[in-house]
Amino acid sequence: MTNGSRIAVDAMGGDEGLAVMLAGVARARRRFEEMRFILVGDEAAIVEGLKNHPNLSAASEIVHAPEVVGSSEKPSQAIRRAKKTSMGIAIDMVKQGRASACVSSGNTGALMAMAKLSLRMMPGIDRPALAAMMPTLGENDVVVLDLGANAECDARNLVQFAVMGAAYARTTLELESPRVALLNIGSEDQKGTDEIRDAAATLRAAKHLPMTFKGFIEGDRLSRGDVDVIVCDGFSGNIALKTAEGTARFVADLLRRAFTSSIRSKIGFLISRPATQLLRDHLDPNNHNGAVFLGLNGLVLKSHGSANEIGVATAIAAAAKMVRDDLTRRIAEDLGNFEAKAA
Amino acid sequence: MTNGSRIAVDAMGGDEGLAVMLAGVARARRRFEEMRFILVGDEAAIVEGLKNHPNLSAASEIVHAPEVVGSSEKPSQAIRRAKKTSMGIAIDMVKQGRASACVSSGNTGALMAMAKLSLRMMPGIDRPALAAMMPTLGENDVVVLDLGANAECDARNLVQFAVMGAAYARTTLELESPRVALLNIGSEDQKGTDEIRDAAATLRAAKHLPMTFKGFIEGDRLSRGDVDVIVCDGFSGNIALKTAEGTARFVADLLRRAFTSSIRSKIGFLISRPATQLLRDHLDPNNHNGAVFLGLNGLVLKSHGSANEIGVATAIAAAAKMVRDDLTRRIAEDLGNFEAKAA
Repeated sequence: MTNGSRIAVDAMGGDEGLAVMLAGVARARRRFEEMRFILVGDEAAIVEGLKNHPNLSAASEIVHAPEVVGSSEKPSQAIRRAKKTSMGIAIDMVKQGRASACVSSGNTGALMAMAKLSLRMMPGIDRPALAAMMPTLGENDVVVLDLGANAECDARNLVQFAVMGAAYARTTLELESPRVALLNIGSEDQKGTDEIRDAAATLRAAKHLPMTFKGFIEGDRLSRGDVDVIVCDGFSGNIALKTAEGTARFVADLLRRAFTSSIRSKIGFLISRPATQLLRDHLDPNNHNGAVFLGLNGLVLKSHGSANEIGVATAIAAAAKMVRDDLTRRIAEDLGNFEAKAA
Repeated sequence: MTNGSRIAVDAMGGDEGLAVMLAGVARARRRFEEMRFILVGDEAAIVEGLKNHPNLSAASEIVHAPEVVGSSEKPSQAIRRAKKTSMGIAIDMVKQGRASACVSSGNTGALMAMAKLSLRMMPGIDRPALAAMMPTLGENDVVVLDLGANAECDARNLVQFAVMGAAYARTTLELESPRVALLNIGSEDQKGTDEIRDAAATLRAAKHLPMTFKGFIEGDRLSRGDVDVIVCDGFSGNIALKTAEGTARFVADLLRRAFTSSIRSKIGFLISRPATQLLRDHLDPNNHNGAVFLGLNGLVLKSHGSANEIGVATAIAAAAKMVRDDLTRRIAEDLGNFEAKAA
């Protein structure tokens, strides 16, 4: 992380409350000594909460926000009072250049609407895309976007997501030419919707980009580690991400039932516990927390609403890494490059 | 199963070949003594293969088909030579009334195109939907449709799928008023596409139907057992089903790695093996095989292309159950009922 750069935190967002947000930020701060924070929210409550975290207190300034965005509030409503809310003010810190990134566990729709209005889109980008990492069997995680910011997308959106996702993978996963695929319901050229086929044709022709286009990928191969970036519309991406989360939990629940079904299996479970604990850590969404809106003139990260202390710390660490990697500038460069050659 | 009813089997479809198809049918036959079969395919090869299955031989007749549909053949091509292929002839057995259902492990797109052309749609149905059962934590499996027959759907299609899926759940799961939900990217009313919101409005108003409409369901709750029928367009359904399959395999692979990571965990694994074996059986797609095209004037089931002997037997047993339950008639009744009240 660049010395002196700050991360603005919406201290009021998230289902778990201020205490968990502060504990998560404090945990991240213990791992990255040079980090500085702007904590946005109810000043009195934050001052009170910081008493438990003197280490964080020393690295933070507090910016008061009188209001909070509700978790089920409509984005169109929330946006009208953006400047009074902890979420809107945290984003504004990025706009003003006081912070290098902003992290919120609050309402995703409101966060996107406010970020878009305040920071504006990069030149050549129509819509921001929400990108996150999913665990795989391969050497690195896979970048998946869009995860729900845009329910419906045209071919042009998908191509832009591919360019941004590849730039993200290049910086965060440190890959020279990330393997990019479009999520589809079959691997043959004629499969899927017109939008997907058109996007594939554009990406296949764009040989000057620092990515390797691998065509289509199906849902059963998301976690195989075959590709580094998976591109889809926000509807499919949200379904895929949540189905993967739900299925992992489902299998874990079945496993728990299996292990507690007899004395014998309980004993086996206790013996192999260190191994299953590793698996649990690998699958815990808190260890993969921190989705980023790509395509904005500034870094805005979404932490899961139900993230615990570890989850919040993971999202903060992800933000710090993006700041250090200068992600926004590198995406803008790749986009400029793409547009220039395409023109 | 009704006495004397027959199931037509496309003996040539599937990646695993004729021997696995015959072994699967023979396995199903051992469980249901009264079953009769029409085995469609290369006559000489089937005669040769049946030498290993005298019990099946006694319950089967063979219908020769000179050609086979390729697994990656375009449906539009396959359909032109339907009457010469094992798939087309097996479907034709249903049309002629010689069989009560048809099962194929072959090319899904070709199977749908041929079945639609040969059997035609039920009155009031625009498109067939591919429906299958997914395992849950609840008491019964959940019916999911459409799984890929229709990449894009309008609100009218989704409503028809809901009515057909509910009828399927009523007969197969023996539920009086199945709980039906639409797959969406959020649970609030304003979430998702116009098509989904319009379908929800129609289903909410259709109080005379033998189903309980539960609104929207997200991807992370597919396996929770909260609902009995999940309705979606074929694109989302395919993504969800395959992501669930892939994630279950992913977790199983991680578990295998974890269990083999040390001597200690290997010992724990061996001790708890009977329990993990049960879990494996519960998740094995072969134990949930047999998707059905709903909305046709006749029963056509798709068995997974890579199904093994047990998978083929599961699909055959599913077909037998649908014949016994008179599924096609019951769906037609529910649809008639829906249309009459809606008019």
